[in-house]
Amino acid sequence: MKKIYIAICLLGLLNLALSGCAGVDLAHSEDARINNVILVIGDGMGPQQVGLLLSYARQAPSSVIESRKTAFDRMIEQGDSKITISTTHAAGTLVTDSAASASQLATGYFAGSEMLGLDKDGNRRETIVEKAKRIGKATGLVSDTRITHATPAAFAAHQTHRSLENEIAEDLLAIGPDVMLSAGWSYWLPETVNDKQSQDYRSAAQLLGRADSIASKRNDRKNLLAQARQQGYELVFDKSQLQQARDKTLGLFAASELPNGIAETLAKQDPARTVPTLKEMSRQALDILSKNEQGFFLMIEAGQIDWASHGNDTGTLLHEMLRMNETLEAVLDWMQGRDDTLLIVTADHETGGFGFSYSAADLPEPRSLPGAYFQEDRQFQPSFNYGNPEVLDRLYAQQLSYYELFKRFESLPKAQQTPARLVEMVNLYTEFKIDERQAERILATEKNRYYRPNHKSLSLKRVPMMGFNSAFFAYPAGNRQNLLAREVAEHQHAVWATGTHTSTPVYVFMQGPRQVLQPFEKILHHTEIGRLAADALQ
Amino acid sequence: MKKIYIAICLLGLLNLALSGCAGVDLAHSEDARINNVILVIGDGMGPQQVGLLLSYARQAPSSVIESRKTAFDRMIEQGDSKITISTTHAAGTLVTDSAASASQLATGYFAGSEMLGLDKDGNRRETIVEKAKRIGKATGLVSDTRITHATPAAFAAHQTHRSLENEIAEDLLAIGPDVMLSAGWSYWLPETVNDKQSQDYRSAAQLLGRADSIASKRNDRKNLLAQARQQGYELVFDKSQLQQARDKTLGLFAASELPNGIAETLAKQDPARTVPTLKEMSRQALDILSKNEQGFFLMIEAGQIDWASHGNDTGTLLHEMLRMNETLEAVLDWMQGRDDTLLIVTADHETGGFGFSYSAADLPEPRSLPGAYFQEDRQFQPSFNYGNPEVLDRLYAQQLSYYELFKRFESLPKAQQTPARLVEMVNLYTEFKIDERQAERILATEKNRYYRPNHKSLSLKRVPMMGFNSAFFAYPAGNRQNLLAREVAEHQHAVWATGTHTSTPVYVFMQGPRQVLQPFEKILHHTEIGRLAADALQ
Repeated sequence: MKKIYIAICLLGLLNLALSGCAGVDLAHSEDARINNVILVIGDGMGPQQVGLLLSYARQAPSSVIESRKTAFDRMIEQGDSKITISTTHAAGTLVTDSAASASQLATGYFAGSEMLGLDKDGNRRETIVEKAKRIGKATGLVSDTRITHATPAAFAAHQTHRSLENEIAEDLLAIGPDVMLSAGWSYWLPETVNDKQSQDYRSAAQLLGRADSIASKRNDRKNLLAQARQQGYELVFDKSQLQQARDKTLGLFAASELPNGIAETLAKQDPARTVPTLKEMSRQALDILSKNEQGFFLMIEAGQIDWASHGNDTGTLLHEMLRMNETLEAVLDWMQGRDDTLLIVTADHETGGFGFSYSAADLPEPRSLPGAYFQEDRQFQPSFNYGNPEVLDRLYAQQLSYYELFKRFESLPKAQQTPARLVEMVNLYTEFKIDERQAERILATEKNRYYRPNHKSLSLKRVPMMGFNSAFFAYPAGNRQNLLAREVAEHQHAVWATGTHTSTPVYVFMQGPRQVLQPFEKILHHTEIGRLAADALQ
Repeated sequence: MKKIYIAICLLGLLNLALSGCAGVDLAHSEDARINNVILVIGDGMGPQQVGLLLSYARQAPSSVIESRKTAFDRMIEQGDSKITISTTHAAGTLVTDSAASASQLATGYFAGSEMLGLDKDGNRRETIVEKAKRIGKATGLVSDTRITHATPAAFAAHQTHRSLENEIAEDLLAIGPDVMLSAGWSYWLPETVNDKQSQDYRSAAQLLGRADSIASKRNDRKNLLAQARQQGYELVFDKSQLQQARDKTLGLFAASELPNGIAETLAKQDPARTVPTLKEMSRQALDILSKNEQGFFLMIEAGQIDWASHGNDTGTLLHEMLRMNETLEAVLDWMQGRDDTLLIVTADHETGGFGFSYSAADLPEPRSLPGAYFQEDRQFQPSFNYGNPEVLDRLYAQQLSYYELFKRFESLPKAQQTPARLVEMVNLYTEFKIDERQAERILATEKNRYYRPNHKSLSLKRVPMMGFNSAFFAYPAGNRQNLLAREVAEHQHAVWATGTHTSTPVYVFMQGPRQVLQPFEKILHHTEIGRLAADALQ
């Protein structure tokens, strides 16, 4: 018996030898270190948002994911991989914002709310980008928001507050990741470009290859684009320039932020498209960074998952998750057959408290079933409406994000901003129709109970009327989106708990050599992910 | 170089040999099968609810979990273990109810909403309890709801609808799990006990050792307790009888359901306590079942996580999660050092869409920080209120569940059911105080927009006034709980999206020999968990 046992065991070992040892580089197998770390962050991508993608992939009658398998499935089913969960709270809080969360991922230290690259006491901490550079690796930051926004900024800036985007742009240049691909040139151009008669405006227009959207949010004359070029950055402003980029590259593809997920989906097949997709930026970043023989660190952010979720805009969120999905597919293509790279996919927090939910509306009619238990008079009649998966196709069919819809509505002359006009727009661009009574509720306003003069979000005196829980709809300028979401909830089967973030622990999907994954096998806090990722990078 | 590589690799293999092979039974190492399967289901325990437990364990200033580590941490950090995620939807739906979800776990087949032990077409499917019995194993069901409730019922009953609890009780006896520990004797006693003058009442009172709570919900004269005894069940009705149980046992410890989590916490140290805790029931079930040399299947349900979440009652939910935690600790104690058992801990779905969230209320005052970046005039002042972790201690301090609170309130004479009285009760039993204006909103009613005559939940003509999203508050008799939750949300930092379930994929925590865990390494659907668990059991 014992002999057979040992024989079987050796057979098992042989298997393990083939899967676990083949191709593992000696230096790394000794100490669980690795050449490259890729960190993909879905901003606001809690289990709820991943769930929306899974519902769509598995259940939508006409899912564009024909295989019914997402990149998350592929990541776990192929190669050595792990799933775990991580809590995200910042120092002294129940819930984190994106700046503190990304700082914790970037430095491994607890941060205070809204800080960048600092610890909870306000001391500068080395980020994983800085460490990677220090040990000779290439580094890159990619985001579909803008490069000075909280998540990318936390990896290569040290600032007391995320709103200091002009200072963040200077930090980014000082720390100097080799590849920065995103948007937000208005924080890089001198304030003088705002004068269309100026020489600076003309130079900027020439550099960017366009006359529109040349604007600066700076309050100084620093031309950070010129400075970047002096520092050896190739500057790229459209898709074809990006495809030519070969080395140190700063790519900014919009004045403020990249198009949202729906806009990206709709434009994707357009041959005239000039703005690259998140997938295209990520692929180019990998091409450039992987030329460094010392290895690299790359952070990729799918950042507008968070924005769609703040607006409780389920249709747009679906497209944001599809953008994440195709980006991750491209990263997995690159990963294929490699054993020198640790890939971590996670979120900084959940946003909105999303879920499909069952309701008391439109209860199902009784119907017959073929099975033995439903013969004679017995019919199948659930007590509630558990939601028809065809909702998923109708969410996919949305043509305009709620944010863009209200931006267009609010740019109409005041007299045209009527309930009837809103009904027309909502019913044109989305599959979930509203009527005038609903439009009136969406347009109703009330005194801002949380009014604060000079506050970035709370300085409006009148705000959309949220009814209850208005404290959690803390960005009133956008709250009409949330009110529209409430009006269509019953038909979308989609419920949302808040207009801000929640504490839901987020998933951590990892792929890489087994011994590199091993220290991550616990319920983590984001500071631990940061520490372990930096430790692994050697 | 190659030689060193092989040597290192062999060293690695030796390690794997010690950890992976030592003690593995031959028959099982061949084909990934196992003696015992324990399935622990947190009903309604989405990532959000696990997150509440983690927030409390890690961050509550006076956490009763002194080690700051939960049983979920221990499960992952000790022994071979995995975490994955699973989607839960029933056939043709976006969201599942507990009956269909548990049926999918029990049979491995897609089920229709609210069915038990049937597939989507209404055909009977073998449950894992039936398979285990067929191959000579012992079987057990433990729940803190009642034994005829959806989750336990799905494992040993075949019924078209979960509401058929009298029929379910008969099915349970026909299928005959060796151990059934829960509550709900009113489905087991003949209707004649409702006449206090009857002989049957007197016999029942003698059998149960009490004069109160003797009641039947049956509409026949079947005495299923007598029948159970004939079938060889030992009948136990209190904690001390349970501790004596040695073999086939039916334990029912309340007429309808076991005490809620707060009641259990408060009574736990009382020497006069007669009702066992979920942990005590689980431990006894393991003691009895593990006597079977052929092995066993055991399902343990922490079922009131769902109930607290339907009521959006965050304080009670915390105590339900603590009950889950201590039960899982007991299971892990039993697991220690074993290699013949697969433990799976999951949920059937998420309930309520819970989250802690940040708000615009009570914004923090600016304060100084010691770090270098906050010297001179710079102060730390986040733009929003991210929530003080001391909220967690105040949630723990709740003394009465919202359900019990409103039950007591509604049992007062009508004239005493005033806002003032509600204020008094809420402010006595909970740490989150309300005022009369808030109590008025909680007590306000409106016409039921979803009225259905003869519907179990929707037949009330007037219902609490939910304002918006009322379709998702589908159990109006309990909606005052949800309204109270809304009133205290701002101070609890707790938001809820719905009064029903959400589609959020749930965690799957597993512990067991590596080769048994291997087939679970993917994003699962609950039918796959059911199939894989049944396949593993041999």
